[in-house]
Amino acid sequence: MKFTEPVLDNLISLISRLPGLGPKSARRIALHLFKNKENLMKPLADTLGIAHEKILRCKICGAIKSVDANCTISKCEYIDNSYDQLCIVENIADMWAMEATNIYKGHYHILGGTLSALNGSDPESLLIGSLIDRVKKNNVKEVIIATSATIEGQTTAHYINDSLKNLNIKITKLAHGLPVGSEIEYLDDGTLFSAFKYRNSIGEK
Amino acid sequence: MKFTEPVLDNLISLISRLPGLGPKSARRIALHLFKNKENLMKPLADTLGIAHEKILRCKICGAIKSVDANCTISKCEYIDNSYDQLCIVENIADMWAMEATNIYKGHYHILGGTLSALNGSDPESLLIGSLIDRVKKNNVKEVIIATSATIEGQTTAHYINDSLKNLNIKITKLAHGLPVGSEIEYLDDGTLFSAFKYRNSIGEK
Repeated sequence: MKFTEPVLDNLISLISRLPGLGPKSARRIALHLFKNKENLMKPLADTLGIAHEKILRCKICGAIKSVDANCTISKCEYIDNSYDQLCIVENIADMWAMEATNIYKGHYHILGGTLSALNGSDPESLLIGSLIDRVKKNNVKEVIIATSATIEGQTTAHYINDSLKNLNIKITKLAHGLPVGSEIEYLDDGTLFSAFKYRNSIGEK
Repeated sequence: MKFTEPVLDNLISLISRLPGLGPKSARRIALHLFKNKENLMKPLADTLGIAHEKILRCKICGAIKSVDANCTISKCEYIDNSYDQLCIVENIADMWAMEATNIYKGHYHILGGTLSALNGSDPESLLIGSLIDRVKKNNVKEVIIATSATIEGQTTAHYINDSLKNLNIKITKLAHGLPVGSEIEYLDDGTLFSAFKYRNSIGEK
């Protein structure tokens, strides 16, 4: 590939490191940005610059917030000082997914990942200490652990359960079972095992 | 969707305007950028800023070039002053595609689009004037018109042919016919018609 313009080369290589994008789509995006220099490339450059400077992870709830603003995203204690329920999620995308269901309207605690020796995420980086503080300080009655149904997610859930079990609060986790719309025949053993084990009385809500 | 951080909202909405990306992938990319603030978000912001400032379209050959550098991409007259062949493509991605075939190693003229009343691309914005200049000045023997096989591409090819026909040079266009690997049964009428009309003697190269 003949291309001797280093700035554009550099831009393409950076874009291709974004999730879901390969070299071809990176090239397409770079050319599109170039075609829309004033109304897309410039605002994107500026917004990224501002985001880099101003946006930080809240050290209490784990949400993303501006350094010069109170944390309003996960309604952490800066905003609201007493609440009954606290939902623990791995990351912000998980919070968005929970929000989209409309079943839960309360506060979140965003771990920012799962416990993992490989990735170097320890209880401190997952804000477990701050979680215990929040639960104590805000008089939380129920902690809902909404980590993924993966080995890492479940390990993290166990760890959080262990950390919180002396606080005399209700600790729940999301139900395992049949995904809505699934056919028994095509389900994996693990899901079917969980669905059978955690079966409910018909009529129970 | 609960999200009250305006900078991040703004970033997501800008990213979702890039080609091939929707709101979900834009959110994923924004969070990825946020997770890699120092080694991805910052360099991307800087590179976009530099690209916005320094990169321009060459007014002679249509290629992208730094404002403080000679245009080396399409070997326009700044670099080289006489050449036999000139290949006309619609955009830079088309030039890359041509380059990838390795069949043509010469100079390019990048129109930056096709003639279109709707998009407001007139002969001036397509650098047709500069094309005629280049052909005259550089003693070009053959102009290869490699515009797309769409109505717009072919209209543009006709227009270019009309503009150049008094210059007494060879004007060629890419062959129409069967794509390599295609099966006759599944080809559209237009392609089959062209393939039949432009059939070659067997053994001819």
